[in-house]
Amino acid sequence: MGNESGGVHWHEQSVTRDDRETLNGHTGCVVWFTGLSGSGKSTVANLVDRTLHGLGVHTFLLDGDNVRHGLNATPSILCEFYGEAYADRFGLGFSKEDRTENIRRIGAVAGLFAAAGVIVLTAFVSPYRSDRDAIREQLGAGDFVEVFVDTPLEICEQRDPKGLYQKARAGEIKNLTGIDDPYEPPANAELVLAGGEDDAEALAEMVVAYLQRTKKLQTAKTR
Amino acid sequence: MGNESGGVHWHEQSVTRDDRETLNGHTGCVVWFTGLSGSGKSTVANLVDRTLHGLGVHTFLLDGDNVRHGLNATPSILCEFYGEAYADRFGLGFSKEDRTENIRRIGAVAGLFAAAGVIVLTAFVSPYRSDRDAIREQLGAGDFVEVFVDTPLEICEQRDPKGLYQKARAGEIKNLTGIDDPYEPPANAELVLAGGEDDAEALAEMVVAYLQRTKKLQTAKTR
Repeated sequence: MGNESGGVHWHEQSVTRDDRETLNGHTGCVVWFTGLSGSGKSTVANLVDRTLHGLGVHTFLLDGDNVRHGLNATPSILCEFYGEAYADRFGLGFSKEDRTENIRRIGAVAGLFAAAGVIVLTAFVSPYRSDRDAIREQLGAGDFVEVFVDTPLEICEQRDPKGLYQKARAGEIKNLTGIDDPYEPPANAELVLAGGEDDAEALAEMVVAYLQRTKKLQTAKTR
Repeated sequence: MGNESGGVHWHEQSVTRDDRETLNGHTGCVVWFTGLSGSGKSTVANLVDRTLHGLGVHTFLLDGDNVRHGLNATPSILCEFYGEAYADRFGLGFSKEDRTENIRRIGAVAGLFAAAGVIVLTAFVSPYRSDRDAIREQLGAGDFVEVFVDTPLEICEQRDPKGLYQKARAGEIKNLTGIDDPYEPPANAELVLAGGEDDAEALAEMVVAYLQRTKKLQTAKTR
């Protein structure tokens, strides 16, 4: 008999994070890639995702593609469905405050995936140190693995995979991180990757090796 | 060689949803419980979660406990970390518009879990039909399983697990769904559970049976 359907006390026993990790055979955690546009974050994160998946690890990747159209939709996207007033109130743009909220929500969602026993990779510029540190603080110890993809601006600008630097230099867009908006490198990242020196495959291997070394690919019980 | 580190074209092959479902051995989807406070949503969702977990299904549960302090934090919670102006801009209260945004974000996050190959259960009043239908529309066909926990208001008020009805009747809180805010029942829910008649265990069994019948507990390949 359910606890809401009569006088009998019935203790509701939820599935715990530990239960979920045991089923998955490994720990849940957040691997947070940060760095300039063109630094190689997404490429490395995708390679790590593939390698971990091949090892039978339950992963997920959060990036602009699956976040900026849904969870953190821009005003113009929200406007279509919910009207202008709603879009103005809830849409996220690219001001400092809006970027902070963008990252705050992504951190919260990443925390939910970790609680589900998933190793979730995030690939966002996430330029402000305080925003990243706030997520680190909210998550449990060891749940936040900060990976700084440290690629010199010159190289990022040369690659310019989205054409953003060209547009910024031409004055067509504003507030581009590295050009007219600051990037604050992590003070104590778990990993710093030399994105201008090693190729993406080698960088991805370093991330996987770190996760193995710190026993994230095992459960607490099997360590 | 990575595609960002030289002239060699390298095709970035992401892990697909299909890959993740194959690893998990079942489909990802959203099982959306809706109903009045005290209807039994959370109790039934927790029981379904336990049963599925016991079957080796990769699940997660989104409810007020893990969403209202993080992702959809109230102004007072945000204020502590980010200050008053930020909390006013981004905190979610309980106005109609704020409730819509609360549900919109939960729907977006639930969609991410489904894309990760997880069967995610959500337990929120979610009183407005248009809000639920918007999520159904955003998700792929078959990804949204709406479960209406149809418990008469009199029974919910008798149970009053959070003491909300008592407070509303005493005029201490406003906008309580069922009292001074409307609940709009689904027009085409996948399942309607008679929450005032059957006990929670029996209702949970119906949900699991539905998921089995519609082959959500298998992958597309094994159907």
